[in-house]
Amino acid sequence: MKLSSRIDVMKPSAIREAGKLIAAKKNCISFAAGLPSPDFIPVEIIKEITEKVLNENGVQALQYGPTKGHEPLLHKIKERMHKKGMPCGIENLQITTGSQQAISFSAMLFLDKGDTIITENPSYLGALASFAPFECQVKGVNADSEGMKMDELEKLLSEDKKAKMIYVVPNFSNPTGKTWSLERRQKLYELACKYDLPIIEDDPYGEIRFEGNHVPSIKSMDIENRVVYLGSFSKIFCAGLRVGWVMAAPDLIDKYEMIKQGADLQSNQLAQMQVETYLNNYDIDAQVDKIIEGYKSKRDLMCHLIDEHFPKSILRTKPEGGMFVWLDLPDGVDATDLLHKALDIDVGFVPGGPFFAEKGHENTIRLNYSTMNPDQIEIGIKKLGVLFHDEL
Amino acid sequence: MKLSSRIDVMKPSAIREAGKLIAAKKNCISFAAGLPSPDFIPVEIIKEITEKVLNENGVQALQYGPTKGHEPLLHKIKERMHKKGMPCGIENLQITTGSQQAISFSAMLFLDKGDTIITENPSYLGALASFAPFECQVKGVNADSEGMKMDELEKLLSEDKKAKMIYVVPNFSNPTGKTWSLERRQKLYELACKYDLPIIEDDPYGEIRFEGNHVPSIKSMDIENRVVYLGSFSKIFCAGLRVGWVMAAPDLIDKYEMIKQGADLQSNQLAQMQVETYLNNYDIDAQVDKIIEGYKSKRDLMCHLIDEHFPKSILRTKPEGGMFVWLDLPDGVDATDLLHKALDIDVGFVPGGPFFAEKGHENTIRLNYSTMNPDQIEIGIKKLGVLFHDEL
Repeated sequence: MKLSSRIDVMKPSAIREAGKLIAAKKNCISFAAGLPSPDFIPVEIIKEITEKVLNENGVQALQYGPTKGHEPLLHKIKERMHKKGMPCGIENLQITTGSQQAISFSAMLFLDKGDTIITENPSYLGALASFAPFECQVKGVNADSEGMKMDELEKLLSEDKKAKMIYVVPNFSNPTGKTWSLERRQKLYELACKYDLPIIEDDPYGEIRFEGNHVPSIKSMDIENRVVYLGSFSKIFCAGLRVGWVMAAPDLIDKYEMIKQGADLQSNQLAQMQVETYLNNYDIDAQVDKIIEGYKSKRDLMCHLIDEHFPKSILRTKPEGGMFVWLDLPDGVDATDLLHKALDIDVGFVPGGPFFAEKGHENTIRLNYSTMNPDQIEIGIKKLGVLFHDEL
Repeated sequence: MKLSSRIDVMKPSAIREAGKLIAAKKNCISFAAGLPSPDFIPVEIIKEITEKVLNENGVQALQYGPTKGHEPLLHKIKERMHKKGMPCGIENLQITTGSQQAISFSAMLFLDKGDTIITENPSYLGALASFAPFECQVKGVNADSEGMKMDELEKLLSEDKKAKMIYVVPNFSNPTGKTWSLERRQKLYELACKYDLPIIEDDPYGEIRFEGNHVPSIKSMDIENRVVYLGSFSKIFCAGLRVGWVMAAPDLIDKYEMIKQGADLQSNQLAQMQVETYLNNYDIDAQVDKIIEGYKSKRDLMCHLIDEHFPKSILRTKPEGGMFVWLDLPDGVDATDLLHKALDIDVGFVPGGPFFAEKGHENTIRLNYSTMNPDQIEIGIKKLGVLFHDEL
């Protein structure tokens, strides 16, 4: 049987594949996946709100609901967007199964085969995976500590007439943990206006800031209605419930809703009501504060241990928030080889190469610090330190 | 901003759009949506199993899980497939967000722009919607009371070299409620083999049989591994949880898993554990029996009332299972006009035209009998009877 030509350009997620290798080993310390800390999953509270939802609206929670999303949840998200400097109405919102689904829908909405998607280099691996079925060219623009390099971006935009969409994670990016400066955001927006392109602003980590000042979102500057903002409860509440949202101009949201009808009719109804009931009855900001405090101390620990135990030839980022540290190893080192050796000593991570649109950069690694506990971070980083000293 | 060319060929679901019109009216009796009966949603049991899941494995239920699905659930589905005459291993299974998502993934897997998808005429509207973004031609093959007409199918296959996939709902089809004979299933399989095509066998209603003998699935004849079977808990347990599955050859399942990674990472983890815990602790067959008994009496009631109150020029199907009756009205009648008049007297339904691949057939209507209670069915059908006598 003949498969679609798109299947030839798709490949399994390097994170999920590394995850399988790690899962196959017992007691492996994993810095691979981007899992929220199990310590901050509010199981008892969720038991309570779930009971409340099922007692008060059980049939509704378990029946089909609207494709656009559970309306009371849309209103709560609207309030939250307002509070975060992005006022909107529910006509600007569509619920998705995590923001991952919103990335995939964005590709479906804006891209034809052969078009160009512009991303930061490196970029979120899951976004690259969701772009693949649409058979586009992904072109990565290099970044420095302030964000995407705007001269490189402008050169690319002036040359590539097939560019149709720009995808960025400006806050505590996955994979590098870097945050864009206000100036870069403004410049990106200006260029998107000049070249009439949509910006997909993916912001799953934006609320998890440990230090430094909040930088306004690109969406908050969006007088031309060209920014599609993707939000998610996965990192600030519960990933397993898979509740995210798109915020965009109403005419675009109508299209997202239409895409969702065909894609899966709607997201889990109970989950939407769980999130709404949580937002109504508990203080999510206090929950976010707990996560910030916990992740900050883990980041401090991991960075401190890296500085102490890794060879000086390995460079790292210092994220002001989020869940990841990024390592640059000396040229010529292959992080995938290192992963296999690390697995032999029961430590896992994700090689950084697959986060880049183009080949190369095999000498990079993404480390997650949110999932493991402090003891595991200490043991794992020390073990990696010994391995890296041996191998480099 | 330029949108993808696919957006031009997509349109909002006629069911969900009719649903919005109906929802805007208070106290409207709706035969439009394909909602399971609220009477058989086991809210108390789900409260119990949810508490059990959250008590015993709360963190796992609320954390990210594997893309392929929750492994214990895969094992329970494997057992169920075995019982239904389609033995398989978990390597043959992928969890999806309802079978709707599996239809969309199938299009993504098998189709390139410009290819032909063959469906029964009429076919499930949600499938047509999920095909639209892939910019294929959908060609409907007419059906009689035994299923798709095989001479028409063979003619089409011999002529259309772009045909890449056949999509069918052989049991109590949505929208007509018809069931295919064994001979037609065998002939379809034979033709799929001859032309080397995959068959997508969508079977959300297969277990809800009121009378007549079980007819083996096409999957159960699949010695060449070319049938992709889609199953769902939406109609036999809870639609709002959005848990369905694909069963296919392992090499295809690997591709479905890869597509799901990019599409939404995974389905709701808690929902998968709720379904698994239900299957482990309760008798889903007893639940299905309750649904069968309830829907059978509603079908009897609706069909009896149609015969008594509708003009004789309106023909109906008599489904042996499932959730829908299909009406053929006299040529020249426009069911969309009738819908607007029906809404004025607080009754809703879905016009049948959009269920066809090609234009025409505006003189058809799908009626759902599972959602409304007997009193509502009686009032609604009598009101429609008066309207149809006036209008026809």
